[in-house]
Amino acid sequence: MTAYTATVTVRLKRGVLDPEAETTQQALERLGFELSDLRSADRFEVDLDAADAEEAADRADEMAERLLANPTIHDYDVTVAER
Amino acid sequence: MTAYTATVTVRLKRGVLDPEAETTQQALERLGFELSDLRSADRFEVDLDAADAEEAADRADEMAERLLANPTIHDYDVTVAER
Repeated sequence: MTAYTATVTVRLKRGVLDPEAETTQQALERLGFELSDLRSADRFEVDLDAADAEEAADRADEMAERLLANPTIHDYDVTVAER
Repeated sequence: MTAYTATVTVRLKRGVLDPEAETTQQALERLGFELSDLRSADRFEVDLDAADAEEAADRADEMAERLLANPTIHDYDVTVAER
């Protein structure tokens, strides 16, 4: 078994409204920053032990499917690195 | 001017309690997943125009300092990619 950190990034699907990101963008603009867009996402770093990187990615993928992301409104991606 | 996307990742400093991450970890364990730790972070993807990557990173850094992160409890890092 090897120790891995799987990073799951969960973001809203294109077209889903994100009032929090919009508010953050407006607040930055009010501070004088120029930006064309701002998107927010949740990032989960999961430490787990697995036989290989593929197994670690598969398990993180299943965690995203079952709990971390809501498939109706979210897209997610998984990356795995040895810890 | 070139179009860049700056990604600002904001995480809690080591030692700061994160009850949301703890609850998420417990929920995953209740679903039968084995994991040794889970940390959560906020990720902001900021689209902006800048003369070069260094200027884009500097501006994203200032956004993190002034609004996106709370230096008392957060660490952050910034990466920049051409869009």
